Amino acid sequence: MDTQQFREFGKAMVDYIADYLDNIRERQVLPSVNPGYLQTMIPKEVPQSGENWKEIMHDIEKIIMPGITHWHSPNFHAYCPTANSYPGIVGEMLSAGIGCVGFSWVSSPACTELEVAMMNWLGKLLGLPEEFLNCSDGPGGGIIQGSASESTLIALLTAKEKKVREIRTKNPHLTEADIKGKLVAYSSDQANSSVEKSGLLGSMPMRLLTADNTGSLSGTTLMEAVRKDKEDGFIPCYVVATLGTTGTCAFDNVEELGLVCKEEGIWLHIDAAYAGSAFVCPEYRHLMKGVEYADSFDFNPHKWMLVNSDCSAMWVKDARYLVEAFNVDRIYLKHQHEGFAPDYRHWQISLGRRFRALKLWFVLRSYGVEGIQQHIRSQIALANYFEDLVKSDSRFEVATSNMGLVCFRLKGPDVLTQTLLDRLTDRKNIYVIPCYYRGQYVIRFVVCSRFTEIKDIDYGWNEICEVSTQILENGLNKENFGFVAILEEEKTIGSLQISSQKCRKRKNQDMLMERIK
Amino acid sequence: MDTQQFREFGKAMVDYIADYLDNIRERQVLPSVNPGYLQTMIPKEVPQSGENWKEIMHDIEKIIMPGITHWHSPNFHAYCPTANSYPGIVGEMLSAGIGCVGFSWVSSPACTELEVAMMNWLGKLLGLPEEFLNCSDGPGGGIIQGSASESTLIALLTAKEKKVREIRTKNPHLTEADIKGKLVAYSSDQANSSVEKSGLLGSMPMRLLTADNTGSLSGTTLMEAVRKDKEDGFIPCYVVATLGTTGTCAFDNVEELGLVCKEEGIWLHIDAAYAGSAFVCPEYRHLMKGVEYADSFDFNPHKWMLVNSDCSAMWVKDARYLVEAFNVDRIYLKHQHEGFAPDYRHWQISLGRRFRALKLWFVLRSYGVEGIQQHIRSQIALANYFEDLVKSDSRFEVATSNMGLVCFRLKGPDVLTQTLLDRLTDRKNIYVIPCYYRGQYVIRFVVCSRFTEIKDIDYGWNEICEVSTQILENGLNKENFGFVAILEEEKTIGSLQISSQKCRKRKNQDMLMERIK
Repeated sequence: MDTQQFREFGKAMVDYIADYLDNIRERQVLPSVNPGYLQTMIPKEVPQSGENWKEIMHDIEKIIMPGITHWHSPNFHAYCPTANSYPGIVGEMLSAGIGCVGFSWVSSPACTELEVAMMNWLGKLLGLPEEFLNCSDGPGGGIIQGSASESTLIALLTAKEKKVREIRTKNPHLTEADIKGKLVAYSSDQANSSVEKSGLLGSMPMRLLTADNTGSLSGTTLMEAVRKDKEDGFIPCYVVATLGTTGTCAFDNVEELGLVCKEEGIWLHIDAAYAGSAFVCPEYRHLMKGVEYADSFDFNPHKWMLVNSDCSAMWVKDARYLVEAFNVDRIYLKHQHEGFAPDYRHWQISLGRRFRALKLWFVLRSYGVEGIQQHIRSQIALANYFEDLVKSDSRFEVATSNMGLVCFRLKGPDVLTQTLLDRLTDRKNIYVIPCYYRGQYVIRFVVCSRFTEIKDIDYGWNEICEVSTQILENGLNKENFGFVAILEEEKTIGSLQISSQKCRKRKNQDMLMERIK
Repeated sequence: MDTQQFREFGKAMVDYIADYLDNIRERQVLPSVNPGYLQTMIPKEVPQSGENWKEIMHDIEKIIMPGITHWHSPNFHAYCPTANSYPGIVGEMLSAGIGCVGFSWVSSPACTELEVAMMNWLGKLLGLPEEFLNCSDGPGGGIIQGSASESTLIALLTAKEKKVREIRTKNPHLTEADIKGKLVAYSSDQANSSVEKSGLLGSMPMRLLTADNTGSLSGTTLMEAVRKDKEDGFIPCYVVATLGTTGTCAFDNVEELGLVCKEEGIWLHIDAAYAGSAFVCPEYRHLMKGVEYADSFDFNPHKWMLVNSDCSAMWVKDARYLVEAFNVDRIYLKHQHEGFAPDYRHWQISLGRRFRALKLWFVLRSYGVEGIQQHIRSQIALANYFEDLVKSDSRFEVATSNMGLVCFRLKGPDVLTQTLLDRLTDRKNIYVIPCYYRGQYVIRFVVCSRFTEIKDIDYGWNEICEVSTQILENGLNKENFGFVAILEEEKTIGSLQISSQKCRKRKNQDMLMERIK
């Protein structure tokens, strides 16, 4: 492909994306394909000779689009938002065009420098304590990671290394293996599955402590768990507090948890992946009270702040611990703290890194503080509007409503709400997923797309009402017998994991039908 | 920014990228900025109100470009290639435009399905054994990871989990901590720094075994290390073999290593990050002889195969081990192996994932088998052309020449070659970095950019000759006294880490000058 063809292809793609997003409301939010659908539509091997770009372009609508779950459809209310914005897309384009690798300052100075600047911009925008920022006098700083999962794991590994060093300094006779085998971590049972996974990957048992009945983890619960573990010979090392849980957007009590961590010398990491973006609005900052106790903080501009994935913003109060844990050329350590720009490869898992700060720069400049705040506030207002609709109908009850997320259910046994969700999913006009709240099955309705308007909330609500009326008026049919057993099983699982339940449900139904026969 | 503005901005960016790449030869490959340069050029905070896209566009040339190391300049011969191609850029655009998250099949079926198909295409293109492919009958399969570093770590963690289970099955009285504390991993001292880092992050000591004098790790060296470790009570768990080392593009003897791994029940991972792309040409496949012994294999299409970063291709022979190690909803395990598409979130560190298969699809279709092969062969031919130039000048000697990488030096003491490299870096007309080969300081000259032509090789060679003539005719000046001490220090460090040596060198020079005074 020569440059002229690229100009044509690239511009055609700009128009395709613009048309796609302009008309996304017209597409069915969930696809109608079955596993394996695509394998029969393309050749089994790479073509021998190159093809013209128009052939490729043609196949997007034919092969790709039928299998897309449209995350930016105003009828997508599942999981949580993933960001997409015009300046974000163009920033991604430039990053691909320049195509540099920013593993050290010299390998592309602008890549490191802009990231340092953007993480300062972003930290100030959220009202984070200054000690987290590169522009403070201390050893703190921010970095763009690929995901909140990565940040949680990186903080865990850093906490582990720090704790091992501390203990070995006082007890030189202990081996690393002795100490590592006793380290434990804590989080809420409402934390994202990636938190549990970080414990699995980092070989540190992750105690999933019971959240209170609002979904929040308290200091006393942590304190009790720490006390017991210490009695049993374990070494408390790492705590992940969640600001905005995946299930219901609950907020852990960071101030209480922070005091325990400070007292016990435990690394406190805050995972604010979704809700962190709300802190651009001063009226929500009370929810992160106690953030000054944290050793590391992460949120995803690629979720709710209009920066295309991947862009997870992580700050640490003292980057030296990161470098000590991650640096494989330790002979260089001495020089990295003498006023040079950070060498970000020592702050992350991978060696290579893309120029992701560009899209953050583009988005923050295009929207400005006012534009970002307006985005957050209008999405929350839409969720509040939905909440009022639910409350206005006596057949329903609202379980929780936080930020852009409303959890609701049909009054009565869980099987009603489960049937509602199942039929909504079958109809594919809106996409919602369930979770459990206080032992009851609820549907999560999240305002996800930046294109969502009042009319879309009305559309979703009408869809929910129509299906609910069918269920309540016509009753449940035989097909629903399978649910209860499956629902019991679901209770052990976090909300995000429920996405593939349909497959399992069908299987269980078959088994139950077998037994009924 | 509304859709119309996006159309304008996006198309202007397509033209900017096209112009940038068309004229990249005119730009100085290395920037002339100092650390902190950018911080004074932009405001300290996010602007209050949004800005017009033209202001952002204007700042790219003004603020970003002065700090870019141009990896796609035909005068860039450092590190190793990072891919960039027109179809790759457009694929990245579409991925950003669709902006879906493919953590499970249902979250966007096309995202998983195209990745399965592309990893089959790619595996066949490289001539990998069929058991690595999703389309085989067995439990093997491929996935796109973010980097070779991630793949090395993922394979290590999987090997660890597998080994712990194996041992506990036979010895139920042993605890996980008991076993984990004894596991050890092996690689060559020529392996990329990310291999050592994987041991650090995964809490498994990584023995960096001595490569032979061609830079290759042999089976007997591994066998001896394993024997000694077993005698000392350790449990050999994981081996990383490198096909194409970073320093000199040496190839470990995979067949020998594989036989040892098979005998000892050790997980064998192959890191072919750079050189793996060459296996699209059948004439190079003999270099991966023994690949059938591997448990996992990774190479980076985002290095030498024209797919923009990030796109690291990883295959495993038995994906069940991955899922067992990474799955945090184990209750689902039973169903994932019953013919459904893979749930890729259990194959990787993060939960979220972008639609990276699109750019792979675009590139493979645009170039075809012939286009990719031609790219690899012409880059190797250019390296051979450079090698001949070096050999034709009696002042120089060629240390190694493999694939697109030629290592050479000025005959005589290391300080001559070091001075040559230092002056080349100061002049900024070409970018090369050093490494050590058989105890001697050499310069690595890599054909990196896809725009490189004979005239660029001539230009680089003339630059090298001109500077060498200056050095050899005018002799070394006082400034060079600092070198020898630093060079000694460098010997302990892998090649890629040498990039920031200039900063240190200046510091050491100052110290030496102090002492001389």
